[in-house]
Amino acid sequence: MPRRVAILAVGDELTAGELVDTNSAWLARQVRARGHLVTGFAVVGDELPAIRDAVLAALREAELLLVTGGLGPTGDDITRDGVAAALGLGLAERPELVERLAAFYAARNIPLNAGSRRQAEMPAGATVLENSVGTAPGFLLHRDGRAVACFPGVPAELQVMAPPLLDAQLPAGAGLTRTLHLCGLAESELGEQLKDLMDHVRAQRHDARLGITAKQGVLTIALRGTDTRAVAALETEVRARVGTLIFGAGEETLASAVVSLLARRREAVTTAESCTGGLLAGALTSVPGSSEVFHEGVVVYANAAKTARLGVPEALLAAHGAVSEPVALAMARGARERAGATHALAVTGIAGPGGGTAAKPVGTVCFAVAGPDGERALTRHWTAARDEVRGRAVNLALELLRRRIGEP
Amino acid sequence: MPRRVAILAVGDELTAGELVDTNSAWLARQVRARGHLVTGFAVVGDELPAIRDAVLAALREAELLLVTGGLGPTGDDITRDGVAAALGLGLAERPELVERLAAFYAARNIPLNAGSRRQAEMPAGATVLENSVGTAPGFLLHRDGRAVACFPGVPAELQVMAPPLLDAQLPAGAGLTRTLHLCGLAESELGEQLKDLMDHVRAQRHDARLGITAKQGVLTIALRGTDTRAVAALETEVRARVGTLIFGAGEETLASAVVSLLARRREAVTTAESCTGGLLAGALTSVPGSSEVFHEGVVVYANAAKTARLGVPEALLAAHGAVSEPVALAMARGARERAGATHALAVTGIAGPGGGTAAKPVGTVCFAVAGPDGERALTRHWTAARDEVRGRAVNLALELLRRRIGEP
Repeated sequence: MPRRVAILAVGDELTAGELVDTNSAWLARQVRARGHLVTGFAVVGDELPAIRDAVLAALREAELLLVTGGLGPTGDDITRDGVAAALGLGLAERPELVERLAAFYAARNIPLNAGSRRQAEMPAGATVLENSVGTAPGFLLHRDGRAVACFPGVPAELQVMAPPLLDAQLPAGAGLTRTLHLCGLAESELGEQLKDLMDHVRAQRHDARLGITAKQGVLTIALRGTDTRAVAALETEVRARVGTLIFGAGEETLASAVVSLLARRREAVTTAESCTGGLLAGALTSVPGSSEVFHEGVVVYANAAKTARLGVPEALLAAHGAVSEPVALAMARGARERAGATHALAVTGIAGPGGGTAAKPVGTVCFAVAGPDGERALTRHWTAARDEVRGRAVNLALELLRRRIGEP
Repeated sequence: MPRRVAILAVGDELTAGELVDTNSAWLARQVRARGHLVTGFAVVGDELPAIRDAVLAALREAELLLVTGGLGPTGDDITRDGVAAALGLGLAERPELVERLAAFYAARNIPLNAGSRRQAEMPAGATVLENSVGTAPGFLLHRDGRAVACFPGVPAELQVMAPPLLDAQLPAGAGLTRTLHLCGLAESELGEQLKDLMDHVRAQRHDARLGITAKQGVLTIALRGTDTRAVAALETEVRARVGTLIFGAGEETLASAVVSLLARRREAVTTAESCTGGLLAGALTSVPGSSEVFHEGVVVYANAAKTARLGVPEALLAAHGAVSEPVALAMARGARERAGATHALAVTGIAGPGGGTAAKPVGTVCFAVAGPDGERALTRHWTAARDEVRGRAVNLALELLRRRIGEP
């Protein structure tokens, strides 16, 4: 039977919107990957009554509550106090934790002050969850057949500390989530292609689900259920309909798909970016091992740089403007030749908020790809904010190359 | 009096952890900026009972509930149904919305299918919130002196639709949040410098708060309260202690601070990146108007590119390795000369997960800055995952330049 898991994130910076809570989504993926159910998330500020009430509410719904944040050394870190209050427990300092903290800070020539020392306080009866990466240990408490596990809010620490606890608390094999990703189709078009399947799945009501989400031009189809054969059959049906568009599954990204394809073909790509300003190269190099297929790229933000680095003729820039398909093609050609790469991707556009004309409004982006099989350019107009335009442009550029080199 | 506002995000993709909920944080910033209180966030899946229960729970705590997600054209979009169920209302199609949808899809040569048409259904008595950017309209419902407003989950649509509603529902001037940002200090060190202030604020208990958070090497001090004079006094005290380290406030980022400083000095910077792979240039160009101070940059991922583009001597690479201060300095020098920029920033490191040696473990990053006042290099070792190392490296590189050119 899948266990029911609730997730709680604590921090004034979260409820104030200054920091986006990515920990809950990360934990949810870990829970789903082990086949268990997430009942929902809650986010509360650094206030003892709010933390206490959220812990109690979550334990009414779920058998396991995962809490992140508020374990650090500063005075607003009061998750320990809130969880202890919810379970009616006191806090006490653990001498072995004080020793470890003292050693950690000493190694970094930072004095162990009173705030840091609070990290050695634990609710009575708690099992300490060791933190090999940072200073604040986590803890696990049991109560009436239910469990609460608390972790630091620093993602790098959480992501090292949580897996062993989750493995112990959530036996694998209770269910399945599959996600399939594609790019270059409108969400409503995909929805139409899968509508009868979605209705069918919903009508059957055996805890299977089919959902679609969109992010910066990438659509994700999620297949979820506790019956692994039903999920596999659903995937076969989805692939029969839109399989040629699907670039990857699960943790795969467009960048990792492109890097894998290039590596298999022993080819390399280079980038020439204007409006994306380095983010296309940044996406490619986010993939471990990308150095095999990506050796260099340029950010040619100014027209003079487009001419000096890539040989884009000044006359071409004057005749068509920097945001044009002829200039995108010249950028791709120049970059490919200069870097000696198999393929080149070029992006030039108006990300906004300023700039833009009636003919080329803000959100206009021109793309070009050049390679051994020739070259191609295209233009898109997006109604979206600067960051969104840049993000979509990165994805569409990667998809352009993928369609060139992916096996059908 | 500040109003109490709850935020609910709906989507299986959120509770499955496939997509991070950034909308709630964005909405919370809007609420706080108008001086009102966020009681907390909740996230639930696309299930009618879960949505209904979350709406009812939120309305017990808050006077206004903001809901995002689940208004789109696919079959799993059932927020309309869940909210209507919570308030005991029926759904009915609005003819004027059908017309508008038909026109929207016709302009894009997409047929108006049954799924898309569901976006024209509204709970009885709802006020329609128009969507000028996408297809799904939002809606506002009142009940017993409380209100529920529902918006699409697409950030670009939410961010256009929500502000007018928030202006109407949340009169400004009820309170204040100030955030101050700095880089280059450990969180515990900053906590110690502000500890007595934090304790003092907490002891006073008049809804003022002082919090510290860390993200990729940037520390944010948040001052929050309903008494604007108390918040201003707190800011003065904080600035007296750590003012020289503070690079900005509110929406300012390290990149925007650096771009502003350069613009004021009429200077330009160029970038030479290895392990950050374009993200440093990407951060600078995330700032509207950055084209005035950033004209070009290079991503020299391979050693051959470091030599060919920046003139880094092969002998230097052989003697010290690509991840070394001499190579970082040679990269910065080469980039500065080539681009004719006032300043150059260079980053070379081992982001992991592969690579690394005992002397240069994964997480080792070397930085250099070169400019009219000479050059400087430094090295950092971070224990963190690939993305985190790259993010911290981008921030520290920007901070290095800021310290050079910022007025004390």
